[in-house]
Amino acid sequence: MSQKHFEKRKAVIFGARGYAGLDLARILLKHPGANLVACLATDGGFRIEDYLPEAEGRGVRSFGMAQMNEALQGADVAFLATPAEASIELAGKILAQGVKVIDLSGGFRLKDLTSYPKWYRFEHPAKDLKAESVYGLNPWSENIASARLIANPGCYATATLMALLPLLREKLIKVDTLVVDAKSGATGAGKKAAENLLFTEVDGECLAYRIGKHQHVPEIVEAAELLGGAKALDFHFSTTLLPVRRGIIAGVYARLAPGVTLEQVGQAYARAYEGYPLVRLGRAEVEEKRPGAGLLSLKRVAGSARTHIVYGAEGDKLFVHSLIDNLLKGAASQAVENFNRISGFAPAAGLTELEGVL
Amino acid sequence: MSQKHFEKRKAVIFGARGYAGLDLARILLKHPGANLVACLATDGGFRIEDYLPEAEGRGVRSFGMAQMNEALQGADVAFLATPAEASIELAGKILAQGVKVIDLSGGFRLKDLTSYPKWYRFEHPAKDLKAESVYGLNPWSENIASARLIANPGCYATATLMALLPLLREKLIKVDTLVVDAKSGATGAGKKAAENLLFTEVDGECLAYRIGKHQHVPEIVEAAELLGGAKALDFHFSTTLLPVRRGIIAGVYARLAPGVTLEQVGQAYARAYEGYPLVRLGRAEVEEKRPGAGLLSLKRVAGSARTHIVYGAEGDKLFVHSLIDNLLKGAASQAVENFNRISGFAPAAGLTELEGVL
Amino acid sequence: MSQKHFEKRKAVIFGARGYAGLDLARILLKHPGANLVACLATDGGFRIEDYLPEAEGRGVRSFGMAQMNEALQGADVAFLATPAEASIELAGKILAQGVKVIDLSGGFRLKDLTSYPKWYRFEHPAKDLKAESVYGLNPWSENIASARLIANPGCYATATLMALLPLLREKLIKVDTLVVDAKSGATGAGKKAAENLLFTEVDGECLAYRIGKHQHVPEIVEAAELLGGAKALDFHFSTTLLPVRRGIIAGVYARLAPGVTLEQVGQAYARAYEGYPLVRLGRAEVEEKRPGAGLLSLKRVAGSARTHIVYGAEGDKLFVHSLIDNLLKGAASQAVENFNRISGFAPAAGLTELEGVL
Amino acid sequence: MSQKHFEKRKAVIFGARGYAGLDLARILLKHPGANLVACLATDGGFRIEDYLPEAEGRGVRSFGMAQMNEALQGADVAFLATPAEASIELAGKILAQGVKVIDLSGGFRLKDLTSYPKWYRFEHPAKDLKAESVYGLNPWSENIASARLIANPGCYATATLMALLPLLREKLIKVDTLVVDAKSGATGAGKKAAENLLFTEVDGECLAYRIGKHQHVPEIVEAAELLGGAKALDFHFSTTLLPVRRGIIAGVYARLAPGVTLEQVGQAYARAYEGYPLVRLGRAEVEEKRPGAGLLSLKRVAGSARTHIVYGAEGDKLFVHSLIDNLLKGAASQAVENFNRISGFAPAAGLTELEGVL
Repeated sequence: MSQKHFEKRKAVIFGARGYAGLDLARILLKHPGANLVACLATDGGFRIEDYLPEAEGRGVRSFGMAQMNEALQGADVAFLATPAEASIELAGKILAQGVKVIDLSGGFRLKDLTSYPKWYRFEHPAKDLKAESVYGLNPWSENIASARLIANPGCYATATLMALLPLLREKLIKVDTLVVDAKSGATGAGKKAAENLLFTEVDGECLAYRIGKHQHVPEIVEAAELLGGAKALDFHFSTTLLPVRRGIIAGVYARLAPGVTLEQVGQAYARAYEGYPLVRLGRAEVEEKRPGAGLLSLKRVAGSARTHIVYGAEGDKLFVHSLIDNLLKGAASQAVENFNRISGFAPAAGLTELEGVL
Repeated sequence: MSQKHFEKRKAVIFGARGYAGLDLARILLKHPGANLVACLATDGGFRIEDYLPEAEGRGVRSFGMAQMNEALQGADVAFLATPAEASIELAGKILAQGVKVIDLSGGFRLKDLTSYPKWYRFEHPAKDLKAESVYGLNPWSENIASARLIANPGCYATATLMALLPLLREKLIKVDTLVVDAKSGATGAGKKAAENLLFTEVDGECLAYRIGKHQHVPEIVEAAELLGGAKALDFHFSTTLLPVRRGIIAGVYARLAPGVTLEQVGQAYARAYEGYPLVRLGRAEVEEKRPGAGLLSLKRVAGSARTHIVYGAEGDKLFVHSLIDNLLKGAASQAVENFNRISGFAPAAGLTELEGVL
Repeated sequence: MSQKHFEKRKAVIFGARGYAGLDLARILLKHPGANLVACLATDGGFRIEDYLPEAEGRGVRSFGMAQMNEALQGADVAFLATPAEASIELAGKILAQGVKVIDLSGGFRLKDLTSYPKWYRFEHPAKDLKAESVYGLNPWSENIASARLIANPGCYATATLMALLPLLREKLIKVDTLVVDAKSGATGAGKKAAENLLFTEVDGECLAYRIGKHQHVPEIVEAAELLGGAKALDFHFSTTLLPVRRGIIAGVYARLAPGVTLEQVGQAYARAYEGYPLVRLGRAEVEEKRPGAGLLSLKRVAGSARTHIVYGAEGDKLFVHSLIDNLLKGAASQAVENFNRISGFAPAAGLTELEGVL
Repeated sequence: MSQKHFEKRKAVIFGARGYAGLDLARILLKHPGANLVACLATDGGFRIEDYLPEAEGRGVRSFGMAQMNEALQGADVAFLATPAEASIELAGKILAQGVKVIDLSGGFRLKDLTSYPKWYRFEHPAKDLKAESVYGLNPWSENIASARLIANPGCYATATLMALLPLLREKLIKVDTLVVDAKSGATGAGKKAAENLLFTEVDGECLAYRIGKHQHVPEIVEAAELLGGAKALDFHFSTTLLPVRRGIIAGVYARLAPGVTLEQVGQAYARAYEGYPLVRLGRAEVEEKRPGAGLLSLKRVAGSARTHIVYGAEGDKLFVHSLIDNLLKGAASQAVENFNRISGFAPAAGLTELEGVL
């Protein structure tokens, strides 16, 4: 990617003080095609430099939400790292100013608006906006390049779908045997001061929550149909909070369809992600033996924009583990993938070089 | 339980320096019916007081393994917190001295000796001993009271079976849809100096391992038949290492058999554990709402001898979470339950008062 | 201690939902001389059983603060695990009902009322009450047995003073060279939902805070004079938040007074704590070599009511490490020591058997 | 820095499998002036790609130590991330092949060879080599550019000296009141499989060790004289192992010299580090109030090559906290600073952009 030929896009982040917002800022500051011009947060005295050492001296302006119009001047794209209801309200106003929107909340993810009261506990107030929004799961979704309003997928949904879609599309599993047990780091719960998220509560803990009722269930069901051709998916979905800061590991378990081999599974994954630089594939029995546990290590995917998919089988029992950084592929770097697509950049521009420190 | 009427049993612990061995010592020192007379470890200079403050001044003698005969003099029961192959060798010698054996390793757990080469990677050398050993899962196993050699169940197997056996026995689930995703604290891997268990490796990590190949699979299959009447159980079993010191949470997922309701599940659990003081039962939707997450909290079962079983359903999808302390119900306190049974003590003697600190 | 001769004292805990309050409840439920009759918390629906499994079926009544009078009926002693200003207000009302008060806050710790605005940021409104209160550091303080209102010492102050007072009293160090660097687990900050105490913030962190300005400084200065005979102590005091749940380790560094040897230091400690069962003493070079690091291990003091004091020297440079559980000797168990003294019980009744799980 | 004008230096890493070695590889792979040609480790099957995802496809060759000569062919610089005695032996052989050496061990740090038996427990076998080695603390050391053999400073020594040298050089403190209490993450102990470094041991722990006897004491004393003009420094040095992976925070405490103000301290720091891009300075009372604790946060320095120095005072009591990443400024990035100097590159080439993820 030659840096010269880029016309840099001016980006603004709403909700820049949260964990996903900060990771977005961190990525955009290094992105060759982005010019991060403004960051907004709800608290007045907010300065992005207080949270992000690398923002110092980079000319990013910080604003309270009241100064939204000033922050948006000249902007090309706004990222919304805000709660669902706030995002819905903001999106209309921002689009009205001719600025494209990439929303990281659940506000525009579900096609079926009747799902909102059940899963999100509010009535969706913006049918028209919802109708034009595009679900942006890379490399699966189409129509992203021309979208004005992109719904960035949920973190658990992303980890699950990246492993599941190739299996569904090629009809390799008995869909009625599917069980997903997904575990997430504590940043997945956001930066809200809640007693149950205190260090003393989370440390030493491993907590199943929203058992069978997580709001990513309908998102996965819709995407499984839209992108994987599987109608009315009905599956066990279990979510657990881990005492780690970053990372999701989703165990995806199912019975192989009659006659299907693990080799075919591997070929399906290879086909699905051919040419896409942000997935790494491995066989369980190989990865387990690698020092540091290879692609199975959550820490080796944390800090990166990649998805690691590790598959194995015993008899007809298929075990797939899908690992992402919940703040990156599960939020910020996926948003930047969408930014790249609407900007005409290479799909992984600004993303391949991301790596955490162990 | 009146303390006077006990005749105290003299107990010896082999492998007292490991995590399970130390917890055994800790419990026995407080047990009204036990007199912990000796602790053995492989390293010469071993002194139990160096590891366990409460052993100071209690007259427990510490030995290297070479002094086994001296350690066993006058003993009633020997606990083996040693590796499987060492346990097999020790058990014969100890029984020959008229001392009963409770073995915490996998050395005597499997009825089918042909399973050892596949799952434990050694040929079982002691068929006769194996034949007389009794699998000691409480409150399920029978014939414990009269046994000379008890095989204490594995930690994952215990967490799984405590949730699973009532379902199997009353035929409440479609057994061919069963998936178990069990997560364990790092003490489950023992106190061996291995690079992959260093703080720097485990902290921030969540590692799936022995995917589909864990040695507790055949143990669960055998016990499901013996104690739950389910033949040739074939199920997904996934094991994960957590960055916590103690505790196992096993997610047990299956489809309910046609017409079965969650109420019936609850009744089955209530029946199974009626009168057994070391199980607590709860419904997922109730426990989730309790402050501190109630029975779903791993930390609230850590340090205790209890099993917490929390069940919920969405449609015909049953979600059960079974929580134990891997070193207690998964090892040391289960061993003490077996000790109580062969000693004629109350089933939970010395165990109900165990609680950790948060 | 013979259980029969006790007349059980009826105890009530205010602020029972916080970390120190819960540990108090946990201890009192096992204390042979205590009858925990009521627990109060600010939130209406509070039930102690939701937080403490062992409270189930023990007949402890739970109340909101509005029902204070009902909760106090028949009580002998009230423990206040409430913020300083709340404690000051409550203490007067409770004493007026003839119930003794042991306050775990800083509300009554400082003799010099003019220190409150500077160190606690409020004017002390209750001079008379303050005048009659007794600072309750065990085994150092006198006049506790007859006190109506006891100020339980601060956690950092306790860890520091237990190591420092013997040195001061016997004039073994150059007091103007004293530096204390104390590190505390996150429970020391209480159970308040604050962003800087979230798991994601504290994990991986080690944060110096209130540098030179911690409110335990004047408390240590006053106690050093009152209990150690050292006037106007002027010393470095550094406080650090650790990513652990429990425990304080205070490094106490000073130059030995001319001619003083480490042996004399050891003798001074032995004299100071002779007959007091809740201190353990060790030499640094011995403890370092013990497996598990002996008395230097924070985890071996966590869960116990003990203080571990480990001393060593290089030339005239004295290094003392003082370790306590911040919630126990630093709060709840010290409060129970005070309860024992006003009740005429043995000093360590209900406390010697406390031990955590590793 | 323009990439074109660099002539890339060929670098080889010995001990590339350890924590410091891996960080070195990670940095050199991104360094515009480096060409990492080979990595060596003691275990035969070693492949750098197994440990470092970003090494994939970069053409770095992996070797066992037996293939040292092959690995060194054409190399310009060898980094030794090996134990002290191994480094001493390797250095001579490597220099003999005309390859410069940057040694990260303690093998060449001490000028006074008689210190080795006492502090490192071996006799130094290579006086001549030691004589020509240069201690490479940046930006303090001189003569680095022309050195063939550079002794990279120790991690604790670096954190301490960065805060201390400006104070010594300008005689701002009473040197006989100096106390340093330094806390380090677990990677500081290296990647060796030792029982006391297991997750279960370190988690929840905070362990003072080598009390007064750490081998960085003589290193600091020598450097204080060589670089700070302070003779025969005699100070308290306390080292503590933290339950975090990365980072050192050293508390540097002393009395200010008569008449010295905190402003003068700030000016001294500003002067010392003017033009050096890898230090950030702040006042304690300002940083404490910044969200996320500003420069006081260990996590905000972890992953970076910077040193954060935060200073405050109460009366004449000076409190300085010096924070580094023990694997970067305390090892790998300092080594790259030395690499930059012997290569004629900008002092911070390849280092300013390093940042961790929170």
